Amino acid sequence: MSCSKTGIGLAGFGTVGSGVWKIIERNGGLINSRSQGAISIAIRKIAVRDLTKTRGADAPNDLFTTNLMDVVEDPSVDIVVELIGGTTAAFDLIAAALKAQKPVVTGNKALLAERGAELFALSAEMKTSIYFEAAVAGGIPIIKAIQESLIGNQIEDIVGIINGTSNYILQRMTEAGLGYPEALKEAKDLGYAEADETLDVNGWDAAHKAILLGSLAHGFLIDPTDVYVRGIEKITPLDISFASNLGYVVKLLSFVRLKENGAVEIRTQPSFISKKHILASVNGVFNAVAIKGDGLGESLFYGRGAGQEPTASSVISDLAEAARSIRNADSNRGFLPHRSDGQLVPIAETETSYYIRFSVKDQLGVIADISRILADVGLGISGTHSPVDPDNPDAEFVEMVFLLHSCRFGPLKTALAKVEELDCITARPVVFRIEKL
Amino acid sequence: MSCSKTGIGLAGFGTVGSGVWKIIERNGGLINSRSQGAISIAIRKIAVRDLTKTRGADAPNDLFTTNLMDVVEDPSVDIVVELIGGTTAAFDLIAAALKAQKPVVTGNKALLAERGAELFALSAEMKTSIYFEAAVAGGIPIIKAIQESLIGNQIEDIVGIINGTSNYILQRMTEAGLGYPEALKEAKDLGYAEADETLDVNGWDAAHKAILLGSLAHGFLIDPTDVYVRGIEKITPLDISFASNLGYVVKLLSFVRLKENGAVEIRTQPSFISKKHILASVNGVFNAVAIKGDGLGESLFYGRGAGQEPTASSVISDLAEAARSIRNADSNRGFLPHRSDGQLVPIAETETSYYIRFSVKDQLGVIADISRILADVGLGISGTHSPVDPDNPDAEFVEMVFLLHSCRFGPLKTALAKVEELDCITARPVVFRIEKL
Repeated sequence: MSCSKTGIGLAGFGTVGSGVWKIIERNGGLINSRSQGAISIAIRKIAVRDLTKTRGADAPNDLFTTNLMDVVEDPSVDIVVELIGGTTAAFDLIAAALKAQKPVVTGNKALLAERGAELFALSAEMKTSIYFEAAVAGGIPIIKAIQESLIGNQIEDIVGIINGTSNYILQRMTEAGLGYPEALKEAKDLGYAEADETLDVNGWDAAHKAILLGSLAHGFLIDPTDVYVRGIEKITPLDISFASNLGYVVKLLSFVRLKENGAVEIRTQPSFISKKHILASVNGVFNAVAIKGDGLGESLFYGRGAGQEPTASSVISDLAEAARSIRNADSNRGFLPHRSDGQLVPIAETETSYYIRFSVKDQLGVIADISRILADVGLGISGTHSPVDPDNPDAEFVEMVFLLHSCRFGPLKTALAKVEELDCITARPVVFRIEKL
Repeated sequence: MSCSKTGIGLAGFGTVGSGVWKIIERNGGLINSRSQGAISIAIRKIAVRDLTKTRGADAPNDLFTTNLMDVVEDPSVDIVVELIGGTTAAFDLIAAALKAQKPVVTGNKALLAERGAELFALSAEMKTSIYFEAAVAGGIPIIKAIQESLIGNQIEDIVGIINGTSNYILQRMTEAGLGYPEALKEAKDLGYAEADETLDVNGWDAAHKAILLGSLAHGFLIDPTDVYVRGIEKITPLDISFASNLGYVVKLLSFVRLKENGAVEIRTQPSFISKKHILASVNGVFNAVAIKGDGLGESLFYGRGAGQEPTASSVISDLAEAARSIRNADSNRGFLPHRSDGQLVPIAETETSYYIRFSVKDQLGVIADISRILADVGLGISGTHSPVDPDNPDAEFVEMVFLLHSCRFGPLKTALAKVEELDCITARPVVFRIEKL
């Protein structure tokens, strides 16, 4: 093996970027030894916005630049690492790197989910790979698992808890009975939520990751506008408590599910799962991805979904892969779509059981009215739950929960619109899917 | 990419071998598509002992041979898959393949753990890789995870449930209160234990896998004769029930633990772990491996540890890797040891808490005598447990459990030898480690 090092250009030196520096400093020799000398990497350029800002790691001053394109154009750079986030400058940087035939490592799930079509086309054209282990589930090596370890499998099912912030918030609402605003504040105070938490709590961070997992598993690019996404912002302690009474916990889950007709069901939303399922015990900011392959059967990958060094660990794994690919001229190691005939299941056609909570005025015939509307579109009731307040058994307004047998979302939506028109209904019905895992 | 297929020579067409055939038949096109055409494999030779035996999959007759070396020597074979088991013919086959510079894929943990030194030396000399994803934890891609995904990590800790047979037996003893013989019989009836269950229940199957994980994680070959291994054959429902009363479950655990001085603690034995730990919920024939890396932090990999297609799924993953390596002439992709200075922690120096059960004659001073012996070698008691039989409060013989604070195994062994000499002791003390995970 050659003794010359593979040069890295690093765009962004925030939490993850400085983590990459630290791991290479600490374990660079180990990486070299473990790879029998095949992988020897050195950071040669670091682009930051502001040279005067305090840095998370002690890299030499002469590596830094404020010109983003230096990390591509510097002749000593062989591989470009994009950790600046966003979908414009990051796009331009990655496109420039691919055009220069320098492999790219990125953790930018939003960029790849939103503008992957352009970037993967360029990757194919330039025969230069984009690696993105760090984009999904932080330190969990789920990309390599799907792409390489499960290459012999038809990936039948992926269910993931892939946003640590929302998982932490839901856990605190469950365990401590906190309301959403209090739990969010706690997450921010502990550094588990960013200053702008929008993408974490509205489901889109998880959805972006699920889009990447779906593309990897099924070989076609998934358009984010076709994906059903709901967040956790409107969840109340009441439904979490009702869920618990019924034997469930509420988790923000992302599904990528291959249906019998070959179409792929992809959705992200807070759902009920049995307390006994292994995913129910994924707590705090941890992530987990359950995968079912037609050969492998059921599997689960669990670990830290964010954080400096877990995410940097994934970047390093990709850097090692990219460094090998340069020596091997193996341009096809990274992911590229291989199908253009992929189909998604329309959300109206997706089927699960349901939990529906109606806030009603307790008047004669209300149960009959609601039940009739549900029955008219073929929705069967498997159970009900409407605890009476022992201190106020004759309350005028009550919460009535209906549990529905597995049904399509389309008819349910129709029925709910009709129920909402009833006089006795005092608020929009609350709907959770009950997932059979 | 070239259109010519990579030829596979398959030695053994039992459960896993016929699974490999089936997966290639079913998903060969998918593998090719997912790899952008880079991986195209075809089985060209299959060696079996008896041509007349019923086969698990419908491969053409002209592929079969009873001459084992045909799977190496046939010119259409590029990669050799060894699935015959054992440590002699399998050794010769793998050695011959390496000498012919044909990469090897094997699931033979016993062979690699016992005779890895010779085979890895030959692998290095011939610049030809040995791939063994199928040797550890069946379908779980743990080898690739450690070798590639965690390449940037110092692997601080590995704890595995990596023998499904013993895990099933222990679970049935726990849940149904079965004795060991009954649980073993049930496992055999269900096909979860082989006709000869020895290596599964005496701990050595798990120990062989742990040896491979330890070698991968720390870069040196571990001599099986230096490894502490205990099985589950002597476990009684009484200790399992006492464990449960104390908040623990008994699991056959394998540890590979990096100590502060750089030495590696490696051992396999049935141990107590908290019922609340995620490993406690790994049931049936499933396997799980928890890994802590200095960058990644805590992670867990869970899935089927045996069975036809899960194991074949791992073989296919290795075949894909080997097929790429042939095209790339990347001879270093597989594992090779990179250190000769590796040290193991002597078992006497290992430290955990302990559960010790003494069967004693209930005579005056017995607790004092035992406690004194323990105290004399510095062993502190953290708790005791000796339930009185409500129907026979004055029983002559009783079971007394002492829970010990964390201590070294050496002094404990010394103390136990002295306790055994006491008149009041009626059986060998039963010892379980209590693991802090």
